[in-house]
Amino acid sequence: MGLEKRHSNEETSSEYLYPPDILQTLDFSRSPAKFSPKISAANPGEDWMVVRPLQRADFDKGFLQLLSQLTSTGNITRKQFDERFTQMKSSGGYYVTVIEDKRISKIIGAATLTIEQKFIHNCSVRGRLEDVVVNDTYRGKQLGKLIVVTVSLLAQAVGCYKMSLDCKDHLIKFYNTLGYKCEPGNSNAMNMRFEEPS
Amino acid sequence: MGLEKRHSNEETSSEYLYPPDILQTLDFSRSPAKFSPKISAANPGEDWMVVRPLQRADFDKGFLQLLSQLTSTGNITRKQFDERFTQMKSSGGYYVTVIEDKRISKIIGAATLTIEQKFIHNCSVRGRLEDVVVNDTYRGKQLGKLIVVTVSLLAQAVGCYKMSLDCKDHLIKFYNTLGYKCEPGNSNAMNMRFEEPS
Repeated sequence: MGLEKRHSNEETSSEYLYPPDILQTLDFSRSPAKFSPKISAANPGEDWMVVRPLQRADFDKGFLQLLSQLTSTGNITRKQFDERFTQMKSSGGYYVTVIEDKRISKIIGAATLTIEQKFIHNCSVRGRLEDVVVNDTYRGKQLGKLIVVTVSLLAQAVGCYKMSLDCKDHLIKFYNTLGYKCEPGNSNAMNMRFEEPS
Repeated sequence: MGLEKRHSNEETSSEYLYPPDILQTLDFSRSPAKFSPKISAANPGEDWMVVRPLQRADFDKGFLQLLSQLTSTGNITRKQFDERFTQMKSSGGYYVTVIEDKRISKIIGAATLTIEQKFIHNCSVRGRLEDVVVNDTYRGKQLGKLIVVTVSLLAQAVGCYKMSLDCKDHLIKFYNTLGYKCEPGNSNAMNMRFEEPS
């Protein structure tokens, strides 16, 4: 089979960024998060809701529009989205995870686990929580908690020795309830921002 | 040429993790860091010193022993080191950078830039500073500043919109002098640590 043929077969709209089965195996009882009622990635509480890896088709399901509620996304074309999806899949270590409202085929929540390969700790891997966003018209369904706990348990499932995040002051309490801690004397996130290329 | 043949050619001890030429082009005048005397990745101040990407041969040049001054590394075999090197190179986005004392063929400083692919900001990339360590018998040679500024300029050179780090309280002032800031209300680093698999 030629490379072009194989390439086109892989790039179907239903293609997942990572294998979806692992989400069904996550044990939510291992998380300190309290859900009421109890929900999980496998059973998110409504039959019209599904927690799954990002798919190529999510370009048409409002994934980028949801992200733009978080920060600037710019005007990303389908080609750019497809290229980034392919690059992430080829690099490995990108677990972009979404919640879909299947009634309207819209992405209503998202969070990303990225995996960083290390030499330290016996060539271990470290997870990071990135780009968490939930459509705020779905309040009261514990979706923020659901998506964060999903990727946190996923980090553990894929072997991370720790999972890290940076956040604003008002979110510290929320993340505390999910098991994240500001470690005394060692909880400073610093940034250097570069000017846009002129 | 068969795959096995090509594979063995690539895995020479002098193989770099990333192309070394880019380090020679970094413009240290773009950094707010003050060096006295002026040094750079291209001219690190001593003719027996070189700033370069990690090489496979660094397993034999004390790279892991240097890292163990930072945190636990465990007992990493040559095979594990080689496999991690290969995985990092194949994934892309890993810029492990070292300073070597060529007189004694020892790694005396190291810092890593990792690149995270994003959808936000027009499918941009974000850099992270990780695993900074300098042999403290080389005090007064500005090596900490040299290695951090090197990978920070590298982040900008490869197109990152920002570079991030987590640090202990006593290092904030140091990183401030290099251009890193704790952004008001948004500078919290949180972690969840997982138990070792039993």
